[in-house]
Amino acid sequence: MIPTLEWTPAGVNFLDQTRLPLEETYVLATDYHQVATVIRDMIVRGAPAIGVSAAMGVAIGIHHSSATNLVSLTAEVDLICKTLAETRPTAVNLFWGIAQVRDLYTQLAAANTPIPQIKSAVVALANRLYDEDIAQCKTLGANGADLLPREGTVLTHCNAGALATCGYGTALGVIRAAVERGHRIDVLADETRPYLQGARLTAWELLKDNIPTTVLCDNMAGHLMSKGRIQAVIVGADRIAANGDTANKIGTYSVSILAKEHGIPFYVAAPFNTIDLATPEGSAIPIEQRSPREVTHSNGKQMTPDGVGIENPAFDVTPAKYITAIITERGVLRAPFAESIRTMAANSSSTLTTA
Amino acid sequence: MIPTLEWTPAGVNFLDQTRLPLEETYVLATDYHQVATVIRDMIVRGAPAIGVSAAMGVAIGIHHSSATNLVSLTAEVDLICKTLAETRPTAVNLFWGIAQVRDLYTQLAAANTPIPQIKSAVVALANRLYDEDIAQCKTLGANGADLLPREGTVLTHCNAGALATCGYGTALGVIRAAVERGHRIDVLADETRPYLQGARLTAWELLKDNIPTTVLCDNMAGHLMSKGRIQAVIVGADRIAANGDTANKIGTYSVSILAKEHGIPFYVAAPFNTIDLATPEGSAIPIEQRSPREVTHSNGKQMTPDGVGIENPAFDVTPAKYITAIITERGVLRAPFAESIRTMAANSSSTLTTA
Repeated sequence: MIPTLEWTPAGVNFLDQTRLPLEETYVLATDYHQVATVIRDMIVRGAPAIGVSAAMGVAIGIHHSSATNLVSLTAEVDLICKTLAETRPTAVNLFWGIAQVRDLYTQLAAANTPIPQIKSAVVALANRLYDEDIAQCKTLGANGADLLPREGTVLTHCNAGALATCGYGTALGVIRAAVERGHRIDVLADETRPYLQGARLTAWELLKDNIPTTVLCDNMAGHLMSKGRIQAVIVGADRIAANGDTANKIGTYSVSILAKEHGIPFYVAAPFNTIDLATPEGSAIPIEQRSPREVTHSNGKQMTPDGVGIENPAFDVTPAKYITAIITERGVLRAPFAESIRTMAANSSSTLTTA
Repeated sequence: MIPTLEWTPAGVNFLDQTRLPLEETYVLATDYHQVATVIRDMIVRGAPAIGVSAAMGVAIGIHHSSATNLVSLTAEVDLICKTLAETRPTAVNLFWGIAQVRDLYTQLAAANTPIPQIKSAVVALANRLYDEDIAQCKTLGANGADLLPREGTVLTHCNAGALATCGYGTALGVIRAAVERGHRIDVLADETRPYLQGARLTAWELLKDNIPTTVLCDNMAGHLMSKGRIQAVIVGADRIAANGDTANKIGTYSVSILAKEHGIPFYVAAPFNTIDLATPEGSAIPIEQRSPREVTHSNGKQMTPDGVGIENPAFDVTPAKYITAIITERGVLRAPFAESIRTMAANSSSTLTTA
């Protein structure tokens, strides 16, 4: 089990993903400000992991509060939630994780629950979300496994693995589940500039599971597709609109077009809470712009001339029309996605995680 | 004028492109072995620049020979040409540049020309090829300038600029010519992993000419196209087959598919000697595989875990069907390219550079 993040008595312990693959070090966040920093600086990243991290951030904030009455605690909870919500804009799971803990808090506060009981309850919820995330990934993996070839090469972009979740992974969870069923799968991992999630993280965690993995630069995928070297593409998601349009790591959109041009199936794997029913289509998803320095510098050395402009959008949106299927823990969604998503949401609303 | 390479009494002087943009340093190659190393290590790169460098390499080899008779000089010339031909496989200009000087040598040797005269003649030819390269780039630029928008953003991949030629550039030459005619053009430069020709070289030389330039990671081009941010794409070429299929820096193929999907024109700019009439189609073009270390390491630091596989093809082939036009110094080629190339080759064979 790869320890992406973990609640400990001392605080939330995060595997430092900025230092992988050569260093396995941990960052202990002992208050909610530190959890916010860990999310913003991408020490933890990946939509599902961000969601649970944010929930743990709210929980640790409440847990450590010195408020002696509910009025001041509620004011503090507002500030905690606001701080965590401002870390990253694109992954809807962040807001979902915050809302889960806040909703429970609101409910308990409305019932005048004693503060010590509230503290225990929110920590318990954050830990339950952690456990559920792993269970969801495994179910999701099982749901998608047989979509992957019995034998062949699967391309993935960024890291939608154990490191992007509390364990097992979404896109990489599907690959793991297929391998567990005996599929013979080689993985091609786009290095995923500028942060190199593929080169650093996907390669690291798949090699730990002895799944043969080859890293390529992002600009090589089309060439390998043209040579018949890729049988399927599978990626994660940071937010899926109600019509199936999917925000994911920058470059995903290009890969989806290349897959279409070569007749290769393109799968999205994500827990159902990545679907944002309040966002009607992809154009409404906010796209985070990150620091130019991620592009201009490499290991501390400047690679671009002074004065040049820099683009660094962290995500792009893949329109639903390029997506073969969306794999969730509740089942596999197919086009027309607006309809299949609506149906799945309605059918399974009773199983939604609630306080 | 950017001094990409230059014949000097002391040897061939190369601007060290591995150290740009932060350091402007030079490497002096005083014998043909050093010229071969300079080409292999990409101190000089770019198909037209490689062609002239190779010609200068043969010339310096002959020039410095201590052979006292034509039999031993001819044996030496064979070795010189073989050494230079083995540096890089894809750019046809390499073989063209070698052939230009060797053909002249063969002709002069057959006429029993005294060795000192042969030495002067081959050096003069290498320098003439240098001058012709610059003149060709300017004519090519003028031929293509009005294909670019009067006002808009042009995406380029890799570096097909002054640094890839003896000056002015091919794709960037077209951009320069358009700007000189008053077009208001912003350039988006794909950073071009793994060697970062776009981030390091294209940005550097365009900023020197005050052409507004923005660097993006290769995986961002599709996203910017979807936002209507790109009006044209222009790239260089390392070898163009007789049917118009074009080998160019890895990633070019993907960009061509993205351009097609977004209805954006995709131009190739290359001197006519980049067209290899002996290669019927793209699948026959040899694709250089370079060292995995270019992908695994960044500024000396390993970014990938031990044991992972690495892909590093240096080029890919863009089928003619994705190319809007091929811009040469002899005119603009359009589909069907097999026919337009054949016609242009026949019409202008009298103007081919010959000894």
